[in-house]
Amino acid sequence: MNADQLFEQIKAKQSFLCVGLDTDLEKIPMHIMGGTREVLFAFNRAIIDATAPYAVAYKPNLAFYEAFSRSGMDVFEVTCRYIRENYPEILIIADAKRGDIGNTSEMYARAFYDKNIIDAVTLSPYMGRDTVDPFLKYENKWAVILALTSNPSADDFETLKLAGGDPLWREVLRKAATWGCEPHGQFKSPTNEDRVMFVVGATRAETLQQVRETVPDHFLLVPGVGAQGGSLEDVARHGMNPQCGLLVNSSRAIIYADTTGRFAEAAAAEAAKVAAEMSELLHKYL
Amino acid sequence: MNADQLFEQIKAKQSFLCVGLDTDLEKIPMHIMGGTREVLFAFNRAIIDATAPYAVAYKPNLAFYEAFSRSGMDVFEVTCRYIRENYPEILIIADAKRGDIGNTSEMYARAFYDKNIIDAVTLSPYMGRDTVDPFLKYENKWAVILALTSNPSADDFETLKLAGGDPLWREVLRKAATWGCEPHGQFKSPTNEDRVMFVVGATRAETLQQVRETVPDHFLLVPGVGAQGGSLEDVARHGMNPQCGLLVNSSRAIIYADTTGRFAEAAAAEAAKVAAEMSELLHKYL
Repeated sequence: MNADQLFEQIKAKQSFLCVGLDTDLEKIPMHIMGGTREVLFAFNRAIIDATAPYAVAYKPNLAFYEAFSRSGMDVFEVTCRYIRENYPEILIIADAKRGDIGNTSEMYARAFYDKNIIDAVTLSPYMGRDTVDPFLKYENKWAVILALTSNPSADDFETLKLAGGDPLWREVLRKAATWGCEPHGQFKSPTNEDRVMFVVGATRAETLQQVRETVPDHFLLVPGVGAQGGSLEDVARHGMNPQCGLLVNSSRAIIYADTTGRFAEAAAAEAAKVAAEMSELLHKYL
Repeated sequence: MNADQLFEQIKAKQSFLCVGLDTDLEKIPMHIMGGTREVLFAFNRAIIDATAPYAVAYKPNLAFYEAFSRSGMDVFEVTCRYIRENYPEILIIADAKRGDIGNTSEMYARAFYDKNIIDAVTLSPYMGRDTVDPFLKYENKWAVILALTSNPSADDFETLKLAGGDPLWREVLRKAATWGCEPHGQFKSPTNEDRVMFVVGATRAETLQQVRETVPDHFLLVPGVGAQGGSLEDVARHGMNPQCGLLVNSSRAIIYADTTGRFAEAAAAEAAKVAAEMSELLHKYL
């Protein structure tokens, strides 16, 4: 999926919502019975079916699946496949925050992209371009690079001032926006904006303006709306570009909106509420 | 395993070698027959049995196992368990380079440490302390934090000068060396040096001196000796402290020393050669 196709979906659904599948066994309603694998997938499937009309992306968080070893990784794969087969228009982001050197990064890219059930992977920029390049060699796939996150210790390093005066996150944006998207096989070389997204936390909406000065055309994946705080209105005002350029993630506020047997209906209602707000913001700022 | 116990093992084996298990199906000798799972594990077991007398640590690289989905993750787990059961004195480092926020990082820590078949996990510092804290809550477990890596694009961000004049990697060392090791349950609070190691690439032996000025007492995990270049003599001269304080990793140079049916003997010979050099260096610099 390229940026144009993502924008088409945003316009069609009037939403730029990404639903984070941070599926935690301890928070799943008791009435779903079965083994770990069955319970986790039954929950995910119900959430996906309930929220798909309002979501343009799903973001399963690998940690939550790896915590259950093989059963968990099974559920991760089956979940991605379920989205792909039933909602092929929706972008699937593996929230893995991988980051390693060339030959290892190639193995990660292969692990995530070879089965074609994932469209994007979150990556840590610490080790530099070597981490990202192998992910840019796949047709229609994305590298989603951490820039400025919304967690309390983001200030440990991300916001440190460099000798030139800019914070580290800005140098990450600047450099990563130039990284190549070499053609791999027959397809035409895409632009950087068709392959690279950046993670920018919504708890700092005021810095979104600075982000947009540096990368006006890139899509931003914005976590931290909902349980982590942050205002959707601020994000849209400062972060939206002519192609929308935003995916705003909500995990817990949607998938755990209710912990009874009505969890799926509650998730749908919450997603619908967010999407309605997004629709207004698209009319206002696009 | 704490730092004292690791040092005891180093003295007993006269080696500070870590063997990287970057097991690549395409490089495994043809004579090992069977399914992916059987072939990968048969190779690892043969390498481990051949090199255990010379190694104080093994470092399976997660990307190589994740590339084979469930079969690969099975092999990862079975391999760690095999080392634990047969060579309980050896440190097991999961080279995963994870890095995420609080609740997600807790899930990763649980994924790696709950079965007690892994002693240490490599972590990316980009998102700050939130990434590392959950790993420090486990008794006798380590967080191995990326500081200065040996890949070409390490200069993209790791070596950038901060406003204060120091490179980013130095600020990572300085901050991470103060992160807490809160007691979890009944055990006594350990020191930071018993829980935190740093990854410092050997292609920059001259910077090892600067590293030692900042973190004189910590263990360093040094990749980049062997296939990635770097001189063991330089690493020992500049990096060794009174507790050795070094784990030097070699992956491909040992595990693919020979690609015929004699691969295990060749790996043993290569590991023995490196360990002999390490023994000399321990006598010279300790």
